[in-house]
Amino acid sequence: MSFSTDIKLPSKVVICEVAPRDGFQAEKEWIPTETKLEIIKKLATTGIQSMEITSFVHPRAIPQLKDAEEVVRQSQELTGIKFRALVPNAKGAQRAIDAGIKKLKLMLSASDSHSLSNANCLTKEAMDGFAPIIELADQRGVKVGGSISVAFGCPYEGIVPIERLNMIVERYIAYGIEEISLADSTGMANPRQVYNSVGQLRNNFPDMTFTMHLHNTRGMAISNAFAAMQQGIIYFDSSITGLGGCPYAPGATGNVATEDLVHTLSEMGIETGINLDTLINVAKDVRQLIGHDGGSYMLQAGPCSQLHVAPKEQLKLG
Amino acid sequence: MSFSTDIKLPSKVVICEVAPRDGFQAEKEWIPTETKLEIIKKLATTGIQSMEITSFVHPRAIPQLKDAEEVVRQSQELTGIKFRALVPNAKGAQRAIDAGIKKLKLMLSASDSHSLSNANCLTKEAMDGFAPIIELADQRGVKVGGSISVAFGCPYEGIVPIERLNMIVERYIAYGIEEISLADSTGMANPRQVYNSVGQLRNNFPDMTFTMHLHNTRGMAISNAFAAMQQGIIYFDSSITGLGGCPYAPGATGNVATEDLVHTLSEMGIETGINLDTLINVAKDVRQLIGHDGGSYMLQAGPCSQLHVAPKEQLKLG
Repeated sequence: MSFSTDIKLPSKVVICEVAPRDGFQAEKEWIPTETKLEIIKKLATTGIQSMEITSFVHPRAIPQLKDAEEVVRQSQELTGIKFRALVPNAKGAQRAIDAGIKKLKLMLSASDSHSLSNANCLTKEAMDGFAPIIELADQRGVKVGGSISVAFGCPYEGIVPIERLNMIVERYIAYGIEEISLADSTGMANPRQVYNSVGQLRNNFPDMTFTMHLHNTRGMAISNAFAAMQQGIIYFDSSITGLGGCPYAPGATGNVATEDLVHTLSEMGIETGINLDTLINVAKDVRQLIGHDGGSYMLQAGPCSQLHVAPKEQLKLG
Repeated sequence: MSFSTDIKLPSKVVICEVAPRDGFQAEKEWIPTETKLEIIKKLATTGIQSMEITSFVHPRAIPQLKDAEEVVRQSQELTGIKFRALVPNAKGAQRAIDAGIKKLKLMLSASDSHSLSNANCLTKEAMDGFAPIIELADQRGVKVGGSISVAFGCPYEGIVPIERLNMIVERYIAYGIEEISLADSTGMANPRQVYNSVGQLRNNFPDMTFTMHLHNTRGMAISNAFAAMQQGIIYFDSSITGLGGCPYAPGATGNVATEDLVHTLSEMGIETGINLDTLINVAKDVRQLIGHDGGSYMLQAGPCSQLHVAPKEQLKLG
């Protein structure tokens, strides 16, 4: 029996920073618009190429993101970054496009019970609601990507069957969508499941671009990213300092921290275009600006490359 | 192009609980012998089959484990558990065997600088010192396993070359050792490195049993375990609540938490013989007895199987 000694992984990975949307929306304390923009501008210095900058939900639903227009408008000067915004409905899409956003992300939940609690409608009803958004985006020349929340596990129903994902992807394809974010919104996916499910989805839908949005609620995010990369996935969301949280477990970790994911990729020799040292410094700034982090290993232990001085005089080494 | 949809992983994994050695030795506050034994006895109720129960180091070097004999003697009643103890030298081996331990674990560092700071000798000198321990163990009919600290990365030297591991394994084989623990003592390994290195070691030494001792200092432990399992590794160390810490990063996470590892395995359908619910309850008790945990996702978020009640009346589901 012979073991492989050269695992196949992508040579480059593209990270989308989602703290400005998924991180900020989980914060109870109001983050002033200028602080949001300060963080976004700091993130833009790291080499990050894409960012989910806000969500155009109703201000009553998520007051923290009521300044969505202002955040988008004031970010226009950052020309090197591809921005996208989450839109829950046609009204939100109209606001987002008017504010100048060039890419919208649709949202729905894989399970009906999560869809009902999050969007007050069944998954199929959520999909029906996409028609006017896509029509509007087409008219205005704006790109649209899809997403599937609780794609691997639902906190109310448990494991999401692959048939459910197949059904949703087919519907997205019917709408002309070419990119779908598979979101493990509450950190329930495990690496075997990710490996096998992503393999099935890629076999079933060879022309679809799948991206991964992984939460680290139960410590499995990095292993899930590793499993997805083994299936050729190169697009990953992450959140600076791990901002994001989990509504079902106060204090629990949220999104995988951008600096932890980039560190792991860097250690594996996978390029991201992001400068890890700059990123860790930005993470320190963000922790200070927000007042806490969301569970970041880099902020605790530092990168592997940061070697230590041996505590004893090592004459024998001489 | 076709993607695999059925990743090959072992059907069973054996966990060795190392908190009584690696966890306790990192605690500054003295843990009374009866508390240690209370924890060991609680752990024995979870279905765990093997335990690294203490280290027979000099009491001046690690005062926290000065009660090694007493801990071993009073654990003898736990007949279902395979106990092993770490021994740094022949004196320690003598003490361990006299106390009744049936399996010794040798220790050395992969890098000379870590070996010097930890054991005040070069790696090769440490290996020379094994001869009297192995002779003694043979005389007394006690098993001996090997270990390699900082096997993947050294906090002073960085990445450990595979040639170094080959050299150490060869020397262990010359001593008749059949099992070696590859210890990522400061959490510097990444899953690509683990996959490739373990593949090489298994190819080079097909008769050797390799076990993995993974720290989660930089959040990569679960991904490293997943990588090792893809190479057929079925023996893993872990520590209840993640007790262990890292001497180079105060407050940083130590050993991968037993409950987090068992949870991931359980979610992947891999048997461990351990009851996860009992284990999580024991983790809660240990956190209370020790006064803190070492970074446990299960203690924050609970297992995936613990579903939540949807917050809204879901009439549409009916």
